[in-house]
Amino acid sequence: MSILVVGSVAYDGIETPFGKTDRILGGSATYISLTSSYFFDKINLVGVVGNDFEDEDIQKLKDRGVNLEGLQQDESGKTFFWKGKYHFDLNNRDTLDTQLNVFEHFDPVIPESGKKAEIVCLGNIAPALQAKVLDQVEQPKQVIMDTMNFWIEGAREDLVEVLKRVDILIINDSEARELSGLPNLVKAADKIREMGPKTLIIKKGEHGALLFSAEGIFSAPAFPILDIFDPTGAGDTFLGGFAGWLARTHDFSDDNLRRAVIYGSAMASFCVEKFGPERLLNLSPAEIRDRYQEFRTLSLIPVQPDDYK
Amino acid sequence: MSILVVGSVAYDGIETPFGKTDRILGGSATYISLTSSYFFDKINLVGVVGNDFEDEDIQKLKDRGVNLEGLQQDESGKTFFWKGKYHFDLNNRDTLDTQLNVFEHFDPVIPESGKKAEIVCLGNIAPALQAKVLDQVEQPKQVIMDTMNFWIEGAREDLVEVLKRVDILIINDSEARELSGLPNLVKAADKIREMGPKTLIIKKGEHGALLFSAEGIFSAPAFPILDIFDPTGAGDTFLGGFAGWLARTHDFSDDNLRRAVIYGSAMASFCVEKFGPERLLNLSPAEIRDRYQEFRTLSLIPVQPDDYK
Repeated sequence: MSILVVGSVAYDGIETPFGKTDRILGGSATYISLTSSYFFDKINLVGVVGNDFEDEDIQKLKDRGVNLEGLQQDESGKTFFWKGKYHFDLNNRDTLDTQLNVFEHFDPVIPESGKKAEIVCLGNIAPALQAKVLDQVEQPKQVIMDTMNFWIEGAREDLVEVLKRVDILIINDSEARELSGLPNLVKAADKIREMGPKTLIIKKGEHGALLFSAEGIFSAPAFPILDIFDPTGAGDTFLGGFAGWLARTHDFSDDNLRRAVIYGSAMASFCVEKFGPERLLNLSPAEIRDRYQEFRTLSLIPVQPDDYK
Repeated sequence: MSILVVGSVAYDGIETPFGKTDRILGGSATYISLTSSYFFDKINLVGVVGNDFEDEDIQKLKDRGVNLEGLQQDESGKTFFWKGKYHFDLNNRDTLDTQLNVFEHFDPVIPESGKKAEIVCLGNIAPALQAKVLDQVEQPKQVIMDTMNFWIEGAREDLVEVLKRVDILIINDSEARELSGLPNLVKAADKIREMGPKTLIIKKGEHGALLFSAEGIFSAPAFPILDIFDPTGAGDTFLGGFAGWLARTHDFSDDNLRRAVIYGSAMASFCVEKFGPERLLNLSPAEIRDRYQEFRTLSLIPVQPDDYK
């Protein structure tokens, strides 16, 4: 079993109410790979970086055991750069700058070592590129995909096509509403699951996440965080924790999907504690186990006493 | 043990995307009393109605065993009337008409049978009136209070005074932010709990509810409802289920507060299925038990396997 991760590798400039960084390692494939590495040790990252990509950032991925055979180094330009500023409540952000650079002509080529991956994680890139990835892999057990409003609005046909080949879609609530055209999330989920993915996860930020599967609905709580330092990458981190847990256990039962949602949520709750992926570089399994347990305690509903009949 | 409920008794005109009613029984004391009657049989309602109040509506309360000694009949005018229209997504509503009528001069007088109540439910009325109620009762075990932005903005001093005498405050997320002046709900809860109520419940509508107590935080899920017919009264119904369960069990432990939150949530999930309080007139204990169990299943996080260390 191995995990194939395809997505962006980037530098981010981030400003939050609590601090500022001009350039820090980022990108969906980066967050997904770093996070899943806490659960599983065969991770193939496919992406592209430019001539400004630092050796120390390569090293951060290598230190976590990520296989970089599929990371293209394009000397013709710079690495994808995004710059954003979060509002006071951290729920909204303004994009101040987007430089696609070498990412503009990214053409994912899956190395041999990644073609037999049993779990394929399609980070948030153009649906046509996501399809190109699926064309190159051999019968993955689970295809897990992320997308965003930009593609729902601008590349809907491609998106609908690739969705037919996806097992698990992970999006946020506004994306689910836009993709389905329905305001009620339960109805939206039914409609999206008819489009392809048998399993759908809707992330609701500070309100937790909903898992819709053949077995029904699971409502996961959000971890109550006093100080969110930087929300960047939290969604990708969720996906990485979710996929990593499934790869580790090779169990796609409803109970284990629930566990995967909680590991994803736990990893995301760590991610936001520091700038960029910093917090994801040196977690311990004990910290992760404890956070999982905190989620259980947080949402535990006691049994009913027998007396009420 | 008995429950004292003080609040409005009203007629509501309601328009939702799914239907319309010109005049239906409403008011916070109505919803709280009807709901708590499913858990406990000694409920004292204190409120006021006008010369247009129908016998059949009196009968609806009597049929549920509610003691109406404290319900004043003011022949000088009509019953409090509110008219509102919900938007397409049901999260927002416009008030089209508010006629205070006899409610304008409501002066709560607690009958002897209510003065020894062990649980006092202060529905959403002027904080000065809530204080007047507390002046008349003898050492209640728990004072449970609701309020709204209108009083937080317009009667803040009175509100802060009465909060010192409250054990459990139940408000929604925007009210918690406004009362505390803090956007982060965890910090807001800390600040509000310093103002008096040792226990705070923050309702988040379609995102469930948070319970903050000395023991920590409990995150309750929202019931995933395909068709919300009419949200009117859901918040009061939550309070009624919560208080009713505490009165029934006389157990104020953290575990039992969690149960009370789920019974409150379950009752609210029934309330929104029909217009006004209709659904609250003929529920069965079995339906309520089953709904509680559905909440448990919805949010159950499986234990972690031992292998992840």
